[in-house]
Amino acid sequence: MSRTVILTRREVFSSSHRLYSDKLSLEENKNIYGKCINSHGHNYVLEVSVRGGVKEDIGMFMNITELKEILKEKVMDKLDHKDLEKDVPELKGIVTTTENLSIFIWDQLYPSLKEFLYEVKILETENNFVVYRGE
Amino acid sequence: MSRTVILTRREVFSSSHRLYSDKLSLEENKNIYGKCINSHGHNYVLEVSVRGGVKEDIGMFMNITELKEILKEKVMDKLDHKDLEKDVPELKGIVTTTENLSIFIWDQLYPSLKEFLYEVKILETENNFVVYRGE
Amino acid sequence: MSRTVILTRREVFSSSHRLYSDKLSLEENKNIYGKCINSHGHNYVLEVSVRGGVKEDIGMFMNITELKEILKEKVMDKLDHKDLEKDVPELKGIVTTTENLSIFIWDQLYPSLKEFLYEVKILETENNFVVYRGE
Amino acid sequence: MSRTVILTRREVFSSSHRLYSDKLSLEENKNIYGKCINSHGHNYVLEVSVRGGVKEDIGMFMNITELKEILKEKVMDKLDHKDLEKDVPELKGIVTTTENLSIFIWDQLYPSLKEFLYEVKILETENNFVVYRGE
Amino acid sequence: MSRTVILTRREVFSSSHRLYSDKLSLEENKNIYGKCINSHGHNYVLEVSVRGGVKEDIGMFMNITELKEILKEKVMDKLDHKDLEKDVPELKGIVTTTENLSIFIWDQLYPSLKEFLYEVKILETENNFVVYRGE
Amino acid sequence: MSRTVILTRREVFSSSHRLYSDKLSLEENKNIYGKCINSHGHNYVLEVSVRGGVKEDIGMFMNITELKEILKEKVMDKLDHKDLEKDVPELKGIVTTTENLSIFIWDQLYPSLKEFLYEVKILETENNFVVYRGE
Repeated sequence: MSRTVILTRREVFSSSHRLYSDKLSLEENKNIYGKCINSHGHNYVLEVSVRGGVKEDIGMFMNITELKEILKEKVMDKLDHKDLEKDVPELKGIVTTTENLSIFIWDQLYPSLKEFLYEVKILETENNFVVYRGE
Repeated sequence: MSRTVILTRREVFSSSHRLYSDKLSLEENKNIYGKCINSHGHNYVLEVSVRGGVKEDIGMFMNITELKEILKEKVMDKLDHKDLEKDVPELKGIVTTTENLSIFIWDQLYPSLKEFLYEVKILETENNFVVYRGE
Repeated sequence: MSRTVILTRREVFSSSHRLYSDKLSLEENKNIYGKCINSHGHNYVLEVSVRGGVKEDIGMFMNITELKEILKEKVMDKLDHKDLEKDVPELKGIVTTTENLSIFIWDQLYPSLKEFLYEVKILETENNFVVYRGE
Repeated sequence: MSRTVILTRREVFSSSHRLYSDKLSLEENKNIYGKCINSHGHNYVLEVSVRGGVKEDIGMFMNITELKEILKEKVMDKLDHKDLEKDVPELKGIVTTTENLSIFIWDQLYPSLKEFLYEVKILETENNFVVYRGE
Repeated sequence: MSRTVILTRREVFSSSHRLYSDKLSLEENKNIYGKCINSHGHNYVLEVSVRGGVKEDIGMFMNITELKEILKEKVMDKLDHKDLEKDVPELKGIVTTTENLSIFIWDQLYPSLKEFLYEVKILETENNFVVYRGE
Repeated sequence: MSRTVILTRREVFSSSHRLYSDKLSLEENKNIYGKCINSHGHNYVLEVSVRGGVKEDIGMFMNITELKEILKEKVMDKLDHKDLEKDVPELKGIVTTTENLSIFIWDQLYPSLKEFLYEVKILETENNFVVYRGE
């Protein structure tokens, strides 16, 4: 009987964005997003967790090298050193709150990681962070 | 169908306290609390998490600005730069262990955050921390 | 009715190890573990969490001093400043992945902490970490 | 005789920028700045140090409240939640490397802090940082 | 010819204090120290640096074990889990600003470490810190 | 007239080692190095600083990409995921204290970085670190 662990990989990506909804007036945008309607940026800290049963002989259920490659292809190459508003086609029309980014990253990773994917956590700053678990 | 995320805000407050129960003898207090029976203090790191369904149009379920205001009024103004033994009427007679502080902060926040409140975490030091989830 | 909290103690231990399975060929070991087949080492950050109902009079359910003593005897004295391959009899024949280490530490602690034991988390580096919850 | 200390205040600002020199060709820009020619952003950590002789009666040489106000007016209000390329007139035509930012911030602060100003340190990421001491 | 290095030991102590000068009126104290006139506390992070020429045969100039013992006796036992106003005779009448604390700790250590003592750094919080180098 | 800045790159390498001098008896080794005579390991944090005059047109004096390549070739490839006692020919017969490692890394880097090399800092753990500046 295998034991179930949660394995997490942490990555950092540096992107620019602003919070602005085209469906709202300038005034409404200001009220909701405050100074975040200006273009600015972050070193986003991303923690992706996968969950599965450890194979006894090799002491892993998924190789972290494989996880890193998936993160590189599906997330880092798309978001790192990019303008989230302009350079990421899949994010067109989506307000890039940390909440929406965590869901976006989940959706990017799910086809590769499937039922192993357990949690996506993003720290926008050291003081604000969001967790999404696919619910 | 909205997606459910957990949003966390981190704050730091600097307070003095000691661990001492009036219901116990000096000897019993020493045995249980050790050097913590002396007045001392901490930079308490507080992480408050709320959980809810993201509204698609604005990419949030609760504005972090609103959460910060609630934390300021209900927690920071009461505990920051205070003596937890003497300056906080609601804590009179309560031993201010990190366990009790996490419950106290939950109870302060619950009337405002209600079912959105998911978790209160306090790091007393980088080595000791407590989580309370309302159970 | 007591309230249930999760209390965590963080410790750091410095050990050497390599990832190498005697059941596999050198080529297979290289494919799976890459550069980790060489002897190397880490400052492992260990976070052990216990969960229980707070006793109102003392504001704790388990004294963190007691938890530290259990960690010292069952984990730190065995693993800190040791070669995990050669100096830990219980790990003989086990590939010391972080996954296996987290399970090993759980098994070391369970007889003392029993149903209070909630989670063992190990950060091998700031970028790779594993959680085990006894499942 | 007063004793001389160095007092440091840490602030974080979140800005977008790209590295691109108008005096160079696109090819040269790519060679020098790599992926940084794309718009992206950072949580810049700023540490400003002042140095002076402590006044015995009050135990300070400069009130950190005063230092915070100067930092707010001269640096944070200008750079935080801004696009460094477009929103900061004084940076027009200047490549916003961390090196140039540290010099820019020194020049912003010097008229207020004069001979007290000791060091400006900026961490662009946790792995890359620059110190400028007015030389 | 020996090579000269700087060796640093980091310790954390948890103390309570307030900023209040008996030589000033209540109004003046409020103006200078703000909310710090209330009793509060910190996890002070202390970094003590010594500087000397490495002895080739042992690869050290001072054993860090020896440095830890000096720090324990001269600083930690006096300040950790104490009220800096009331429990430390040598600090009577001294306003316990971080500036004054860094000088106090230097003076405590100098008789033992003499010319090896290079720097005392105290982080009151992650955002405010002071360095004293004996000048 | 160019302005002089200090640029720092942070890297982490994971190595095993023990502290043991062949020129001393077992008893002397135990007295000096304590539990460090056992094989163990660390995530060494390395911070290499270079110092030079910023070229106005490009806003740099040395490209951090170039610095990273030098660090990779001269330090990381030699020390990361290695046993410092056995796998690094240049360290044969040298006690691998953090003091000696900082000098070793300086000597590895000096031929490439020459007068630009300003400081090598190694954190063996979060509590013990050494700086070498070529003196």
